[in-house]
Amino acid sequence: MLDRFKVPLADQVHVSEAALRQTVAAIFEQCNLTPEDAAIGADVLVTTDLRGVESHGVSNMLRSYVQSYQKGDYNPRPNWRIVRESPSTATIDGDGGLGVILGPKAMRIAIDKAKAVGVGIVTMYNGRHLGAVGHHAMLAAKEDMVGMCMTATQPGVVPTFGAERRFGTNPIAIAAPAKQQPPVLFDVATSAVAGNKIGLAARVGSNLLPGWITDKEGNPIMEETPVLPRGQYFQLPLGGTREQGSHKGYGLALMVEVLCTVLSGAIPNMLESTGAKHYFAAYNIAAFTDVDAFKEMMDRMLEHLRNTRPAAGQERVLYPGLSEYEEEQKRRVHGIPLHKEVIEWFAGITRELSLPPLQTLA
Amino acid sequence: MLDRFKVPLADQVHVSEAALRQTVAAIFEQCNLTPEDAAIGADVLVTTDLRGVESHGVSNMLRSYVQSYQKGDYNPRPNWRIVRESPSTATIDGDGGLGVILGPKAMRIAIDKAKAVGVGIVTMYNGRHLGAVGHHAMLAAKEDMVGMCMTATQPGVVPTFGAERRFGTNPIAIAAPAKQQPPVLFDVATSAVAGNKIGLAARVGSNLLPGWITDKEGNPIMEETPVLPRGQYFQLPLGGTREQGSHKGYGLALMVEVLCTVLSGAIPNMLESTGAKHYFAAYNIAAFTDVDAFKEMMDRMLEHLRNTRPAAGQERVLYPGLSEYEEEQKRRVHGIPLHKEVIEWFAGITRELSLPPLQTLA
Repeated sequence: MLDRFKVPLADQVHVSEAALRQTVAAIFEQCNLTPEDAAIGADVLVTTDLRGVESHGVSNMLRSYVQSYQKGDYNPRPNWRIVRESPSTATIDGDGGLGVILGPKAMRIAIDKAKAVGVGIVTMYNGRHLGAVGHHAMLAAKEDMVGMCMTATQPGVVPTFGAERRFGTNPIAIAAPAKQQPPVLFDVATSAVAGNKIGLAARVGSNLLPGWITDKEGNPIMEETPVLPRGQYFQLPLGGTREQGSHKGYGLALMVEVLCTVLSGAIPNMLESTGAKHYFAAYNIAAFTDVDAFKEMMDRMLEHLRNTRPAAGQERVLYPGLSEYEEEQKRRVHGIPLHKEVIEWFAGITRELSLPPLQTLA
Repeated sequence: MLDRFKVPLADQVHVSEAALRQTVAAIFEQCNLTPEDAAIGADVLVTTDLRGVESHGVSNMLRSYVQSYQKGDYNPRPNWRIVRESPSTATIDGDGGLGVILGPKAMRIAIDKAKAVGVGIVTMYNGRHLGAVGHHAMLAAKEDMVGMCMTATQPGVVPTFGAERRFGTNPIAIAAPAKQQPPVLFDVATSAVAGNKIGLAARVGSNLLPGWITDKEGNPIMEETPVLPRGQYFQLPLGGTREQGSHKGYGLALMVEVLCTVLSGAIPNMLESTGAKHYFAAYNIAAFTDVDAFKEMMDRMLEHLRNTRPAAGQERVLYPGLSEYEEEQKRRVHGIPLHKEVIEWFAGITRELSLPPLQTLA
């Protein structure tokens, strides 16, 4: 992630993975989730924080999840069910359950279908926030598959030339295993910048960059700007302006909407607010080629990418998932840095729910 | 497409769809293709020109295809075969055959598998140029499926922060049917601009825009620039710079490389020049939801997109495939405008191959 979004050192408080996992699971249980589901939710969020993806970890998301459970917007005990099925596909009614927790279950179904017939594709409607889509894609990569995941969310993004919001930040993830190299894990919003990054920018007092948002009339703002008040701006698709390719970001957002929403038989949020819809895909590598040969070729390609001569002034060339993998190794040892505001929120919520406080590292 | 790439009126010569189809098929037959394959090739190219996608129609591509057949780089009678298969997947050795012609055959296999088990995914290695990937995706949409198609091509694009080419323009297409509205047909390069558009810009004497290419050292050129000589520049991923999201374009290019190349058991072109690799996907809508309901929901969504209030100074909001559909209606009636240089090339090649000349409209 860009340095501008990092929590400043002076505002960091470190917590261990184990302590965070325990407290997050306990909070989910107090929201009336089963212990099994609470553990899944904690695993998804804490793994995301371990990878340094603050925008989708506990700091940005848990607070809003708890509020949604408390308001009754999320169903803590969803009776999710498959409403249509074929050997390689399933369509699921998520019954208002949090996607963070139903995502791994849906991807499991996709993986099992891929084992049986080569590929598994699962769509889910009547869903809620999916968390980091990359997490779910990665579950397939751990089973020697290529995993993909997408989610169609609440509108905040204009189409190219438009002055009304039509799409969510509709992210796309793909994960693929390698042998020695860290796996590829690509996970990006189809908007110019992820919605949660705007929240992070506000928290750390950072400006938004040119081409990230429009003014109220849909005109792209092409200079740096502080975060505007809610309702005073729209988000731009990846590309920013038409000449820089915003029609590509717009088309990708539409692709996500078709595969997540329309293909699952649901109503797009641009027409009616109907919750999030998701897409999960697992490609069984062995159905296409030799698994070992695939992983060795991934190694060769990823090494070649890392060895690309950097442009003047650049330190090195990365690939998607590499720096997050490196961050994870560090954080497993040294703990996860949370913003002091987040620590304060934990203090409040654990008190409110009569839970032991979150343990922090010295 | 941007106006800057349109053939200037004074340089246009119109030809009918039927005349162009006949001459293109005759040229392919002279390259030793079977009449059936020649007709498929002509259909793909002329359909692309009808949609106004000059970059991938006869004007930009046929000349290079004929040269490649004449040099022996393309196999006119490929003995393509399925080397691995499962109920929902197939991996094909393309035996050096032109993708324009093998693409519809591969997509047919994907469609048949999707009819049988819900989804069909076909990869092809040892392939050659695929033409407009959107054309192949559209074949599935015509069968009440969602179609996707991608191709991994010769490197010309740097990864973010890099100063060496690693990826082709690796385009992605998705097509989905609607009921009354023209279908969605999204077809874009994952580079800031399609490689063929650089050729078009050179032909019509247009500048390249900021964020489209780098200099020799990998530095993004952030002002307008004439097309530089070959070897003096690299292409940038969609997004242009890291802060504008070039890591997203880079990641999408890598995704295409994984799904087309590594999943088919082949060597990426960044490591060894091994021809193009392709990916074809067909999702049988009926396996997920009711087909009529799907199409009606597509209509509602696409109408809503078209009715989006435009930003100040913009005429209207489009969706991917809409303006190409409109162009197709016009060109079916009024003919296809070709650049006079292209007409001259046709005059030369038909003479060389002892074929009747291409008939032009008055």
